[in-house]
Order: sequence, then structure tokens, then C-alpha cells
Amino acid sequence: MKKIINDPNEVVQEMIAGMISASPNQLKQVEGTTVITRKDAPVENKVGIVSGGGSGHEPAHAGYIGKGMLDAAVLGEVFTSPSVDQVYEGIKAVDSGKGVFLVIKNYTGDVLNFEMAAELAEAEGMKVAQVIVNDDVAVEDSSFTTGRRGIAGTVFVHKIAGAKAELGGTLEEVKEIAEKTVANVRSMGMAISPCAIPAAGEASFTLAENEMEIGIGIHGEPGIERQKIATAAEIADELTGKILDDMKLNKADELAVMINGLGSTPNMELFIINEKVQKTLKEKGFHVYRTFVGEYMTALEMGGCSVTLLKLDKELKELLDHASDAPNFFVR
Amino acid sequence: MKKIINDPNEVVQEMIAGMISASPNQLKQVEGTTVITRKDAPVENKVGIVSGGGSGHEPAHAGYIGKGMLDAAVLGEVFTSPSVDQVYEGIKAVDSGKGVFLVIKNYTGDVLNFEMAAELAEAEGMKVAQVIVNDDVAVEDSSFTTGRRGIAGTVFVHKIAGAKAELGGTLEEVKEIAEKTVANVRSMGMAISPCAIPAAGEASFTLAENEMEIGIGIHGEPGIERQKIATAAEIADELTGKILDDMKLNKADELAVMINGLGSTPNMELFIINEKVQKTLKEKGFHVYRTFVGEYMTALEMGGCSVTLLKLDKELKELLDHASDAPNFFVR
Repeated sequence: MKKIINDPNEVVQEMIAGMISASPNQLKQVEGTTVITRKDAPVENKVGIVSGGGSGHEPAHAGYIGKGMLDAAVLGEVFTSPSVDQVYEGIKAVDSGKGVFLVIKNYTGDVLNFEMAAELAEAEGMKVAQVIVNDDVAVEDSSFTTGRRGIAGTVFVHKIAGAKAELGGTLEEVKEIAEKTVANVRSMGMAISPCAIPAAGEASFTLAENEMEIGIGIHGEPGIERQKIATAAEIADELTGKILDDMKLNKADELAVMINGLGSTPNMELFIINEKVQKTLKEKGFHVYRTFVGEYMTALEMGGCSVTLLKLDKELKELLDHASDAPNFFVR
Repeated sequence: MKKIINDPNEVVQEMIAGMISASPNQLKQVEGTTVITRKDAPVENKVGIVSGGGSGHEPAHAGYIGKGMLDAAVLGEVFTSPSVDQVYEGIKAVDSGKGVFLVIKNYTGDVLNFEMAAELAEAEGMKVAQVIVNDDVAVEDSSFTTGRRGIAGTVFVHKIAGAKAELGGTLEEVKEIAEKTVANVRSMGMAISPCAIPAAGEASFTLAENEMEIGIGIHGEPGIERQKIATAAEIADELTGKILDDMKLNKADELAVMINGLGSTPNMELFIINEKVQKTLKEKGFHVYRTFVGEYMTALEMGGCSVTLLKLDKELKELLDHASDAPNFFVR
């Protein structure tokens, strides 16, 4: 598979340089690291919010850095957890004394490295807390994960924890609302075409011209099953159905919906999926409060999409609606 | 090529439904048409701004509807101009008596249909003016165009004309600033992989595994030449060089930069391109005022990117910075 790159081993460093030169007034790189922070980090008297993980999921996570969302993103190599040292640098860079909160997607490497970095930081007197996001209802345990994987629902956790911190929440309060978000968010994805890690050069898996894979992970990890490619309406129903089976919803419950493109799927197709998801939710008597359609948590140029539902209450709605100036999650 | 769709002949209508259900408080469809407008259209005592064209370029054009940008987008079938009737409906829907301004990309079908619709509207007493955007420096005349094509630079015209109208500009003033923007904006693109129109089902062109095409259009129209695939730095230099050759810039001139993904190119690669473009512009003594990296004017799932440069002055900077709440061009 073709790539527009220079050296496959330098893609992350060059991407970071390109992110900083695109937003020099909003972002800065912690020198000698793969950590990007808000330009004004550490923000005085505010809990710092740190996320990150392997690269290749852009706009996650650096696109969510901004007032009201993340203070820092720690970038690993493509589809590879950042090291303990790098995560530690991220924590240190945003610590203003009020504590640092980590949003970790549930992959074995990420969990291990973020938690070890947290211990290091605590040993130096910093206060650190974390949440592990495991929104993917497709499979229990998979290639890189014990338990359910963390996928696009993570972006809602960034948003809500970030708003709580911006509004002056303590580390304990931020952790509490992040845990509530994780408890109420579910996702599932599917793919029609693969992606390629630049250093590998070739597709990470193959799908026949009439095949799709349901429940696939954001690194191409196997999902539930390969099927003959279905219509958008059937795909929407399969993903939404599996998510709803796993949620305990009552009529008139309010939801946020995210239709996330995995990389090469045109917006046109995401909107077609969205229309069916909205219809189904309406028929079941749920109320959609806010909808997000676009690329939020990608897998390089993978073709496919995921659906995320977040059950809302008054507090979650207010935090979801709170202003964010992150480049890829603007809320006025 | 695989698609996540239902009926290939219904993709535009289903996409419109999905757009409206995603943003029910911001957007509405003019009943029985393929016109989407601001929910509050027509806005009293404001010039209405209308753009549009074939579908498949999302987020163009409906993603730019919002306060401070477009009042309406008129959607044609995939890569096909909307009809005269549809454009006329778009004009009528946003006319508040102060006039309607059309931003037209330079393709023969679009120019013909938008101009005929303008004549129809004028015959009914509406005031209409327009600008034709022809920012693509790659080729003079091509498959669907006499003269240079209109591509991603069009988005800057939407933004600047939209801001002028929002600030109370008259139809003549909006036309004047739009013409100034067109005179100062240049773009060029390249592709590494094709797209497929849903109703056709197959790739619109083929490129060998080691090939790229420089100067390609946003419908896959031929560009300048096919070459062996180059590095991101070489591609950035080739596109930027050709654009700068065509602009009359002086040292210390200020620029807006847009690095636009054509569909399936990961953000990672766009940021790598951006880094080289920024370095080159800096070396040449130009000052980059603002940078946009992402998908702004796509060609379904085509792989590749375009570079756009807009020469700024005080007035253009102010209008570019003016608030916009369009979903895909948020400016605070």
C-alpha cells in the first residue's frame, strides 16, 4: 500500500513537527519527547488531563488537546504504546500541583505503561489518577487486550473529563465523572478494507472484494466474524443492535451518538449510516441529544466505521456541551 | 471498490437525510429539493451565500453551512452539477431581499447551471451576484472545465465571503472581497489511489503500485503527469513550487495554508506534508498566518492531497479570523 511519507521510521516525529507547525499558538512539544501539550501548560490550579497511545488513530489524541479537553497527548510509534518514560514526561509537563488524570484505552501495553508512569510520578510527589476505557462491545479479550478494547468512546471521556477539570473539578471529581462516562458508553466497529503500518509497508490483513469484518479493532485485530458485505442499513442495525443489547436503556433516555470513520470511508457513507442509526434509536423511543459524524478515532487508512452511544444525564450533557477549543472537537 | 451504502442511486438523498438528522438544530432541507440551508434561513438583512456542486467532496459544501459562512449548499448527484432548478431553489431559500451571492467552482456544468439559475432569480426580482473560483494551477482546460479548475481554495472563498456577509456587507462588497480572494488563492493536488462513483462501482482510474499523478482534479481528471511515487518532501516541494511560481509574492507576505486530504490519506501523512510546506515557505521568507490541515474538499475515497496558499492582507486576515459555527470550519 502506498504512503505519502519520507522515512517510514520517522513518521511519528515528522507528524509531531507538522502538528506543531500547523498550530504554533495552541500546541507545543516537550523537547526531546513525543509529548504534545497545550501551549499554556501547565495550567495553574487545574487538574491536567493526559491521554495518548499508539499513533495512527489521528485525530486521536493530539487533535483533542485544547482548553476544555486534553492538556497533553503522549504519542507512541504507530499502533504501539508510548514508553513509561514518555508517559511520565507527559504527566510532569501538565502537573500544576492539583493532580493529573490519565485517560487510558484498554490495551495491555497502554495500561501497563501508563500505570507504571503514574507510579513513578506519585513516587515523586505528584497526585495521579486514571480511568481505563473499554467501550468496544464486540469481543472480550483480543490480540492486544485483556477484556474489552477502548475505541472511539474514549473521545467522549476526553471531552467530559476535560470539561470537569476546566470547570475546577478536583482529581477525585474528574475521576468520578470519567468513570461514570466509561460506565455509560459503548461502541462497535466494522471494516471493509485494511490499513498498513508505514514501517511494514503492506496491508495488516486482507478482506475479499465481497467481504466485511464485524467487530474489528482499531489495529485490525480480529472481530466477531467475516461476512458477505451488507447494506449500510444492515450494518447500522448490526452495530447498534449489539451495543443496545449491552446497555440498560429505558424509553426516553437521552443519548449522544458518534458515527466514526476509520480512515478511508467517505463522509457520505458515514451520513448514510447515521440516518439509519437515528431512525432505529427514534423507533425504540430514545432521544438523541447530540450527534457527531466524522473521523474521531481512525486506524490509518482502514475502510469502515464504528458506532458509539453514550447514555446521558443532566451532568454529562452539561459537560459534553461545555466549550472546547481542541482543533478536532470544537464546541462553542 | 466496496462501499457502505444502500442503493447506489439514492446515496445523495440518504446522505442529506443523515446530515439533517446529525444537525437538526443547525440545518434544514428545503422540502423536495437537494438544498440544505441554515436552520434560520433566510437571515434578515443579510446577503445570502450559496455554494454547491456535485456530491462526493464532503465536507464540501454542506459542512460549511453556518453563521459566518454559507447560508445554503445545493447538492448535485455524485460528481455531477446540480440542476438549474435546484440552484434556483437554493437562491430563493436564502434571499432576504439584500441579495444572494453564489460561490461557483469552475466546472462547465456548475458555471452554466448556477448562472442560468441566477438569471431566473433575477427575472423574478432577486438580486444575485457570483464569483467563479479557479484556484487549481495544475492545468489550463481539462475534462470538465474550460480554464483552471476550482478546488480546495474554494473553502477560503466561502469563509471570507461568508464573514463579509455576516458583518453586514452589501452584495457588491461581498462580490468584491470574494473576487479579491479568488485573485489571491492558488492550489494544486496529487493522487496515489483512485475513487469510485457509487453508481459506477469501479475505480474511476488506475495507478500502478509505484505511481502517483501530479495535478490531478477532484473528480480524477488527468493532471500534469504520472510519475514514480516520490517522498512526502518531494511532493510538498513540487506542489508548493508550482503554486509559488504562479503567485506574485514578496518577502514577508503573509499566507494562509491549507493541506487538504482527498479522502483516504491519513492525517499523519497530511501533517508530514505540512511540515515540509511550512519549512519551504519559511526559508523563502514568507510568514504563515494560519494553517488548516485535514479534509476540506475530498474526492470520495481518493488517496492524495492538495496544497492551497492564500495571500493575505489586513482585511482578508480579519475575515478569515471572523467567527464561524459551520460544523467543518469552526473559528472561535
